[in-house]
Amino acid sequence: VRISELSETTGVSIPTLKYYLREGLLHAGASVSATRAVYDESHVERVRLVRTLVDVGRLSIERVREVVHTLDEPPASRHELLGAAHEALRPASAAQAPSAAALTQLHRLGLPECDRSPASLQLAQALTAAAAAGWTVGTDALTTWWQAMLSVADSDVVPGLASVTPGEALRYAIVGNVLTDPVLLALRRVAQEAVSAERFGSAPASGTPATATPSH
Amino acid sequence: VRISELSETTGVSIPTLKYYLREGLLHAGASVSATRAVYDESHVERVRLVRTLVDVGRLSIERVREVVHTLDEPPASRHELLGAAHEALRPASAAQAPSAAALTQLHRLGLPECDRSPASLQLAQALTAAAAAGWTVGTDALTTWWQAMLSVADSDVVPGLASVTPGEALRYAIVGNVLTDPVLLALRRVAQEAVSAERFGSAPASGTPATATPSH
Repeated sequence: VRISELSETTGVSIPTLKYYLREGLLHAGASVSATRAVYDESHVERVRLVRTLVDVGRLSIERVREVVHTLDEPPASRHELLGAAHEALRPASAAQAPSAAALTQLHRLGLPECDRSPASLQLAQALTAAAAAGWTVGTDALTTWWQAMLSVADSDVVPGLASVTPGEALRYAIVGNVLTDPVLLALRRVAQEAVSAERFGSAPASGTPATATPSH
Repeated sequence: VRISELSETTGVSIPTLKYYLREGLLHAGASVSATRAVYDESHVERVRLVRTLVDVGRLSIERVREVVHTLDEPPASRHELLGAAHEALRPASAAQAPSAAALTQLHRLGLPECDRSPASLQLAQALTAAAAAGWTVGTDALTTWWQAMLSVADSDVVPGLASVTPGEALRYAIVGNVLTDPVLLALRRVAQEAVSAERFGSAPASGTPATATPSH
């Protein structure tokens, strides 16, 4: 199809598609003349992936470029795949070097050393950043969270992944995390409301939004 | 203290502090002459809060302004507090209206209706956005995640919150979530690696980073 049809199918404007082509986020179409190229299903899929990463994942263009390059040449081993996916999903904020306190805490909990994988490093960095801002995560909380995340991960890492191509497994890991991280964080907040209502017993009246303006 | 000392104490440059003052993120100091104002501990705390929201939470300046205004006039009830905190932490991406399918799914799970609180709405929106991008979260996964997040929330909503001021409770909810969301998501990734290693049995050799370049 021509670029105008690619635009219609994906709902992404032609100038934006041309920007994606220039920035290397979208592979070139097949040239049919000096001024015309045609696009296929692989372009439709790629455009949808880029939109997901940008709109939902709020990834920068540089980060999206990194992701699509990794997808185009996925690492061979399953573990490197997950590492590559997690590396692509690292937080946008500038990372601090992990503090000795964070490393000691992770070590005591039996969690992997932070040189083991991008995710382990991100964990040590997140604990370090929280502590630097005055928020130390206690060992009890961290143990509870680790158990909770193990049960989440158990549903994330589906057995079917054993039989897909490396590219598909990588796409699954990246897109799955990007799309469901917001679900998980929203569930955390809803759960905070449920626990707060139970603990402090001030549930709002039925049918009243919890943030309604007080009438008094 | 003078603005130069506020800058030294917080590590934030004077131009940035002046920007915060202009944008209403930082309350004015007490004027001691036409061209000079003095700042106190409340300014130091506020600057640190703004840095945390910007650097770790990646909140926009508009969102930070919203947060500090809410902190300056916190709602009276504990439930409205949590709602206000969650509203401030809503994802930066443009929200889609919740789909009927997402609402039905949440209803079947017995989760709160999405007009109940900002967090419930964010949950319905996140499920809708995921489905629109081709990723439907199954009911089994959602049930597992909800249980996991209830145990996380149980450690989040500390009993001590019953006895603090509304402003302190709000600050706790906002700062706590901003600083520990990245910890939780990093733990999810580390757990994915642990489950993947167990399920697919391809753990990297001890001491080898999981993303090392293959030697072959």
